[in-house]
Amino acid sequence: MTDHDRFLSRAAGRMQQSAIRKMGTVLASGRDIISFAPGYPAPDTFAWRDFQSIAADLFGAQDGSVLQYGPTRGYRPLLESILGIQQRRGIAAPLEELIVTTGSQQGLDLVARVLIDPGDVILVERPSYVGALSAFRNVQAAMVGVAQEEDGIDLAALDDTWTRLHADGRRVKFVYVVPNFQNPTGLLIGLEKRKRLLDWAERRDVLIVEDDPYRELYFEDSATEAEVHPIKADDREGRVVYLSSFSKTLAPGYRVAWISAPPALTAKFEMAKQAEDLLTGSLDQRMIYEACKRGVLERQLPVLRREYARKRDVMEQALRRECGDLVRWPKPKGGFFLWLTLPPALDADRMLERAIENGVIYVAGDAFFVNALGDAGPSGRNTMRLCFSAPTAERIEAGVARLATTLRGELAAAATAAGAAGRGAS
Amino acid sequence: MTDHDRFLSRAAGRMQQSAIRKMGTVLASGRDIISFAPGYPAPDTFAWRDFQSIAADLFGAQDGSVLQYGPTRGYRPLLESILGIQQRRGIAAPLEELIVTTGSQQGLDLVARVLIDPGDVILVERPSYVGALSAFRNVQAAMVGVAQEEDGIDLAALDDTWTRLHADGRRVKFVYVVPNFQNPTGLLIGLEKRKRLLDWAERRDVLIVEDDPYRELYFEDSATEAEVHPIKADDREGRVVYLSSFSKTLAPGYRVAWISAPPALTAKFEMAKQAEDLLTGSLDQRMIYEACKRGVLERQLPVLRREYARKRDVMEQALRRECGDLVRWPKPKGGFFLWLTLPPALDADRMLERAIENGVIYVAGDAFFVNALGDAGPSGRNTMRLCFSAPTAERIEAGVARLATTLRGELAAAATAAGAAGRGAS
Repeated sequence: MTDHDRFLSRAAGRMQQSAIRKMGTVLASGRDIISFAPGYPAPDTFAWRDFQSIAADLFGAQDGSVLQYGPTRGYRPLLESILGIQQRRGIAAPLEELIVTTGSQQGLDLVARVLIDPGDVILVERPSYVGALSAFRNVQAAMVGVAQEEDGIDLAALDDTWTRLHADGRRVKFVYVVPNFQNPTGLLIGLEKRKRLLDWAERRDVLIVEDDPYRELYFEDSATEAEVHPIKADDREGRVVYLSSFSKTLAPGYRVAWISAPPALTAKFEMAKQAEDLLTGSLDQRMIYEACKRGVLERQLPVLRREYARKRDVMEQALRRECGDLVRWPKPKGGFFLWLTLPPALDADRMLERAIENGVIYVAGDAFFVNALGDAGPSGRNTMRLCFSAPTAERIEAGVARLATTLRGELAAAATAAGAAGRGAS
Repeated sequence: MTDHDRFLSRAAGRMQQSAIRKMGTVLASGRDIISFAPGYPAPDTFAWRDFQSIAADLFGAQDGSVLQYGPTRGYRPLLESILGIQQRRGIAAPLEELIVTTGSQQGLDLVARVLIDPGDVILVERPSYVGALSAFRNVQAAMVGVAQEEDGIDLAALDDTWTRLHADGRRVKFVYVVPNFQNPTGLLIGLEKRKRLLDWAERRDVLIVEDDPYRELYFEDSATEAEVHPIKADDREGRVVYLSSFSKTLAPGYRVAWISAPPALTAKFEMAKQAEDLLTGSLDQRMIYEACKRGVLERQLPVLRREYARKRDVMEQALRRECGDLVRWPKPKGGFFLWLTLPPALDADRMLERAIENGVIYVAGDAFFVNALGDAGPSGRNTMRLCFSAPTAERIEAGVARLATTLRGELAAAATAAGAAGRGAS
């Protein structure tokens, strides 16, 4: 048999299985496991009847373009709908600054391929979204994490990091941020800070990659639409590459998202996409377009905001009740995630085995932390991301109880081990 | 405004607009143009009613997984259907050797990213499929074209090329072939030659990337199922990475294709795909799976073979009638394409302007030719690819008449120019 390792590219040699996707394998095992791991939307919120009637109309009309190859940039009427969505977010971008992507994951991959050469430095929030880290890792970026404060990325730390890299002769190509209900922390970047971040990018000649999938999911009891104002909306100099998606609002199975970026970059994203998958699925684009046109998206949004806020409440209440003495978290004001910090003695990754035994899973925090500078910094060892969007309220309550059992079991085991070590040392 | 060129990766700096996709822009202009350019299937052959009833069932059942994120490898029942399809082609591959891709274009891109480092040499047929060339170019492969004979790639030339590269200290990672009804020439690799190619790959320690989208479309008057036997079927040592697709048989708008490859490579394709688009569209995979399960695919195949053979006949008859004195081509025994060689005085790329004026487009041959070795070799200047699958029979006849007018106009212009040059010199 051929030894295939000899044939791998350097990038492939370093590729890793995503921590989140690995959890999918555990779920597929068929055991009764409550999953707080992957950031899935709740399938009972999908607009099934609307989609059924849209599909009936599209196939009934036998319009060839519904199932045919189409333009790499995307289906023109859908692009125009997206321009409208962006306008309502305060972004005035013309058609040539827009491209449809096969999910935002492809958007991140296109950004990576078009902007990064092996060894190029990019800055990311610490912690940051693992899917973006994977895309950037696959083009061999050197990623440096920048700490976050309560109102998002720490601008002083950001400039310190830039200055340090600059002094070392390293150029920073872009900073990657998820300003709204960040994945994994759920944090919002403050409005004033967004402006200062944009100014900083101008001053330091760095691009901003703004990934904004959760923006519509602000919980009306804790955040307003004004607070999710995109950085892109104030971009006068073409500093911002903006990504957003229909995955969290209509459904992720369609794989329809977009990038809005300066024309010179969008043209390159198009060329990269041509060679990557030619086009985003035609039927998917048509389903999404019709859902926009027929008002399905507009009707969904308030429903989703209420539903996910309710689940957030259920998870917070359960956490306070079951293990409020042990863990802490910033209150999610929108989005899908709650970011939990455990007692320092615990290691969320090592604890996963016990959690699976107890029938609950999460994503251990480690995977969200990178630091190419190699200095110590926090590792996220005692943190985890919990997704509250997918499970039902009942499953959230049961899952948190299982998680609390896991935490207490792990703490007891740690205490016993420490006791044994103490005795061994005496 | 920011100068974005300074931010581009080396790969992006070299990216090119695909010659075929550019033609799409001409078509979108809304003029009456008969297109022999992109390799589109005929939309009137799509199984509209079947798809409509499948969609009604899928949405009606409200099964969350139809619109949810899913495993990167693909929807398990679809993977099992594909194993069955492969078995009928003589390929005995287990589940761990299979991954669903977002069209074969993504398959080619995954192959490129997992196997190629910048500067690595790969061998391709000359001419070869532009979509593959783009994917390989985007990872900065050094591509060397190998001449084809009537029964496909010239094995003596292949080994000469390998030897020459080897002597220069260059390692060849793989040879890329489309053995069935090659894009763009329509050629078949002879059965005996397939075996010798596999032996050669073993001897020279090279992988084979076998791209097989047209295999089901053999025209029963000129080719048999035995003649489209995959190289992969005889692969005992894990030499062959096999790609195939539902785009030419069910519909390309679904973006569902697959790779079958040794487990070590498939695991890397999965990791690369995780970061590239997470998963292939869930609805698309379910539509295709149901079309397989309900026998739609099986029913389509004989219909498509007859329909495309008929269009091939129409195009050949029109060419013989309109310009048989000027052009020659190998008879397509299947697939979508006819490869035309023009009089040596003509340049198909330069002629495109006149063709568009006359209301017909094609893909000029140049784009299919690569040669990183830099020696002369044929350029394909006086060749073009004509796609007969998409237009109706009437449009094929009208389009060939327009093409003949274009050819004669161009020849007359060339003669006038030569005359003027002759007078100028006298």
